[in-house]
Parts: sequence; C-alpha cells; structure tokens
Amino acid sequence: MKLVSYFKSGHDQLALLHDEYLYDTNSLSPDLPANMADFLKNWDKNYQTALQAVTALREGSPYSGNIIPYNSVQLLAPVPLPTSLRDAYAFRQHVAAARRNRKVDMIPEFDQYPIFYFSNHRSVEGPGDVMCMPDHLEKLDFELEAAIVINKKGKNIKAEDADQYIAGLMIMNDLSARRLQMEEMLLNLGPAKGKDFATTTGPWLVTLNELKEFEAPAKPNHIGKNWNLKMTCKVNGKQVSEGNLADMDWTFAEIIERASYGVDLYPGDIIGSGTVGTGCFLELNGTGKLKDSSYQEQWLSNGDKVEMEIAHLGILQNTIIAEETDWSILKRKHVSS
Amino acid sequence: MKLVSYFKSGHDQLALLHDEYLYDTNSLSPDLPANMADFLKNWDKNYQTALQAVTALREGSPYSGNIIPYNSVQLLAPVPLPTSLRDAYAFRQHVAAARRNRKVDMIPEFDQYPIFYFSNHRSVEGPGDVMCMPDHLEKLDFELEAAIVINKKGKNIKAEDADQYIAGLMIMNDLSARRLQMEEMLLNLGPAKGKDFATTTGPWLVTLNELKEFEAPAKPNHIGKNWNLKMTCKVNGKQVSEGNLADMDWTFAEIIERASYGVDLYPGDIIGSGTVGTGCFLELNGTGKLKDSSYQEQWLSNGDKVEMEIAHLGILQNTIIAEETDWSILKRKHVSS
Repeated sequence: MKLVSYFKSGHDQLALLHDEYLYDTNSLSPDLPANMADFLKNWDKNYQTALQAVTALREGSPYSGNIIPYNSVQLLAPVPLPTSLRDAYAFRQHVAAARRNRKVDMIPEFDQYPIFYFSNHRSVEGPGDVMCMPDHLEKLDFELEAAIVINKKGKNIKAEDADQYIAGLMIMNDLSARRLQMEEMLLNLGPAKGKDFATTTGPWLVTLNELKEFEAPAKPNHIGKNWNLKMTCKVNGKQVSEGNLADMDWTFAEIIERASYGVDLYPGDIIGSGTVGTGCFLELNGTGKLKDSSYQEQWLSNGDKVEMEIAHLGILQNTIIAEETDWSILKRKHVSS
Repeated sequence: MKLVSYFKSGHDQLALLHDEYLYDTNSLSPDLPANMADFLKNWDKNYQTALQAVTALREGSPYSGNIIPYNSVQLLAPVPLPTSLRDAYAFRQHVAAARRNRKVDMIPEFDQYPIFYFSNHRSVEGPGDVMCMPDHLEKLDFELEAAIVINKKGKNIKAEDADQYIAGLMIMNDLSARRLQMEEMLLNLGPAKGKDFATTTGPWLVTLNELKEFEAPAKPNHIGKNWNLKMTCKVNGKQVSEGNLADMDWTFAEIIERASYGVDLYPGDIIGSGTVGTGCFLELNGTGKLKDSSYQEQWLSNGDKVEMEIAHLGILQNTIIAEETDWSILKRKHVSS
C-alpha cells in the first residue's frame, strides 16, 4: 500500500496510490480518516480497513470519489506534521569513507551501538521547491537516505519486536548546509543549524506488506531485517550516488530499540537511516580529491534538481530555490569575544 | 505574571499564581483559554487579558472559581506539550571549566556563534518524580539552566527584535545520563540518548514584565539583555552549584536569532540556556579531581532529591526514582562487528 498526502482545498488529504491514480481514503471507506495524522492515531485498524479497500478496488469495486492522476496534484510530505525527527548512522560504508577521506581510522564504536541525533521535525517537507537562505547555499549538500514512520506508541521496544512499530518506508533527503554544520560541530554538540532548514521526504509511504519479496537478512550479529532496494541520486539528470538499502549495518529494528530505551515513541515519529555510502557530495568530494588533487568540489546551488530514487519507493524530486535576501548569520560571526 | 500548569480531573489546567494561590485562567476571565497550548496560540491577546485580570484581582475584584494553594496540587511542566526543545551553550564559564578539566584550551569558536542542539521535546516534564532506567543511572547528572518559551511564530528574527518572542523564563534541569552521552558523543553527532529521557521544567513560567527590575546588560559586543538572577542547585539539601543568569555570554536574543535563521519558531518551542558554570556534577567532578586526586566523583542515584532555585523563578524539585527493571542497552553493546 502506498499512502500519499497531497494538498486539497487548503488541507492535507490522505490518499492511496493505485495504478498511478490517487483514491482519497475517506472516499474509499467512510471508516477511514481523511488525513495522515488521524490515520496514524489508530494505525492497526485503519491499515486493515485500507488494505481491504485496496483489495476491493483491485477486484473492481466501485469508488465514489474523483480519481486523480498523482502527478496532477501538489504532493506533500507523507506525514505532513511529524511528531519528531531522528536521524541515525546505519551505513558503515558512509562513515568509513568519510573517515578515510579525513585520513583517520574507522571508529570502532560505530560497530558497538547505533547512534542517532534529533533534528527539526517542523522542517520536514515533501517533493517540490526547497527555499534556501544564503548561508544554506554555502556548500549545500543532499544526503540519500530511507526513513521509517512509527505507527504506534511504544517504550523499551526490543529489536526482536520492533518491526511491528514500522508503518512503512519512504525516501528521505537530509539536506545539509555544510559550512554551518562544520562550524557548529567544532563545539561537539552535533549538527543543528546545518540541517534544521529542510528535510524532504516522499513521494509516498510504502507499507511493509508491499516489500515482503525484497526483505534481506540483517548483517551478521545484527537483529531485524533489511530491504534489498537499490538507491540512486541524480543531480540535474546526472547520477551521482548509488547504493542499496540492504547495506544498512544497523537495522531499523535495532535503531528503534535504542531510540525507545526509557522513551516513548509516538505514531508519526520519523527515523532516518543515515546516509548510504556515496550518498552525499561531502563524501564524494573527499574521495574525489584523494584520487585526483585537481578534482573540483561539487555542491548544490540555486535551480539544481535533486532526484532520489529507491526501488519500489518512488522518486523524490526537489528543486533548490534561493530566497531573495542577503541575510546571513555567518556574517554576524563575532571576530573577538 | 506566573503561569502554572497543573493536573485537574484528567487534563492540564492553566492557572495564574498570585500570593501562593492558583487562579484558573478560564475562571479569571471567560475570554481566557483553560490550558497553556491554547494560551500560547494567541499569546499577545491572552497575555493582555490575563494581565488585566491579575490587576483586577490585586484591586479586590471577585473571583468565581475555587482558590487553591499551589502546593496542594500536582504541578505539571508549565508547557505540558512543547512543540520543540533546543538547548544552547551560552555560559562561557561552563565550557571553559569543562575544557580545563580535560586539559584542553578554550575553543575560540565558542565566542564566535551561539550553537544549540535539538533534544526530545516529548520528554519534557515538570516538578516531581523522574523515572530512570538502569542505564540512565550510570553517572546520572543534573544540569542547572534557565529556559525561555517562544510566544509566537517567527522566522529570520534579528537579535535586536527577539525579546518580544519570549513568553517568559523558567528553570530547566537538563538531566544527563553521562555514560550513554559520553559513548554516543565519540561518534560526533552530539548528545541524544544521554539526554532524551527527561528534561524537567518549572515550577512556573514567569513573564518578562515581572523581571524588569532584574534586567542586566548583555556582555560587551553582545546584543539583547540578561537577567540578574541568582541560580543554585541543592542535592539532598546540600548546595552544590551557584551561578547567575546574568553571566550568559550569548543572550537568549542572540540564540533566537540563530535558531530562527531560515526556520520558523513556533509558540510552545522551548530553548534552554545551557549549563551555568558549576551547574553539573560533570564539571564539579573534573574540577574536584584537578584540585585533589583523592576527590570522589558524585552522581545522582535512586531517591536523590534535586532542588534548583533561580531567584524570582521559584524552586524546581525533582526526585530520582529507579524503574524496577534490569533492561540495559549498554549491555546490548556489540563486542565485535
């Protein structure tokens, strides 16, 4: 099942995507809510009702609403107002390459526990234009990731039980303003301003029942499962990244276990996988320079089109748009104390 | 004006504190909402209405509701469901002492820009018991801070205009599980599990009009204002920390400027000041050991009472309570990859 949120007469409408067309959930069944927030509040029941409705549709059951091609509407983030946003660090290759580029050894703690950081859940966006301030355009980068959405409240969830808390998978682009990020990270509290302005998700949320045939085993000594889904990113039509979601070293189940330790997770919480190997310019630039000292750094700029695809999860398209302002906090920097 | 949220027949009731007694907002005036979330949605208007109601009360105007002593109810966090939680790094003394303890130089970037990180807004609590899991009790620490609450939506707010976005000040205890925190911070994404289980706030939110006589100038080259308010922390009745809110090097106005760069702030967002100098065991232990190698580290444990006071902001009391479980993610740590 593919769940889509789109803009309809001033609100976010939830729909199921079926054969390239959108079917509003509340037109499919009077028992289904009309938006994602309400759908998530009672996920297990709504999921079953929606599944039955899709099956009926496939079998030729009539549909009372308007049938709309998905590419004729303004798609929103599948979860338009997430309850929180965590981003993990699951792909060893990304971490190892980044450290190799900085000529430091792989950090052994990566293999011991699956860390994450909190980001700005109010800046989660869907496909379309992404407005950027001047400082964001100082070494602007994409990050190719997958994300899960939590479907029910839970605390102290064991990795062995965690998959039942996953509503589904979607593509996530953790846009990163590297100059802001690198400066703030010198002070050891992690990334905040470097990543708080826009994190795009979509184009839809794919429930796990659709992905059964792509399930892949977790890495040795890990708990949970992965999904064998090819990941790519194109910038202005040119492919720059390629990876596979099955390469996650820490599974989403293990990340849920850690995130929920002593802490309630809520329906609508988003958790990103972290960047796949080769999945951002920062890593590609470092590797490029190691191989060839004349390599020219690549960053995103005004007008650039970023197109992320994960097999069976769709294509997430965003265009970078510069705000018409010269307001810069980088320039407010104090020279002396 | 002191705004209090307390537990009343299954919901969070908003009240004004006046001469040790609580006056429910909606009993004071039919125009006032009954909870903080609704009060914040239209802060400027509600604030004026509430201010008039308090003045009328002082002048002997009758009150239709029950008058309740504040210490006879269960106080909640002043903002029971914050829209986000950021914590800044405003006190130079805390950073300098921590670095001195680690025998590294002060980091010059501290003086150049006011950083913050995002924490778990769903774990904000009020006065009272704080439930801790076994891993939280591994080097459990308090952090003595003040916090502001944002009172209206805003983006790209200049420091010069930022004070009008502050609903008021309250005490914040950024409880920290140091073992989890130190381990995760090795991977450079900042603190997350070390601080995501409980951040206590309260006992009430004091609006800025009550603090006019305590306003203090910002440090040289800084914008905005500080407040000359003594801060102390007692653990089991013994004072361990003492500082002053006027010692903030980065003002809340400057922190708002940075936080709102390219990002909407919302009514109900909480921003902490960061720890005041001497305001946590981590710093005190380091300094203690530097002075005397036989110094015994102090941490919080089951049953400990933490009492934070900031002059004119009240006293925030919490008791550490160990959950009856042996579930530990520290013990799930992978020994090999």
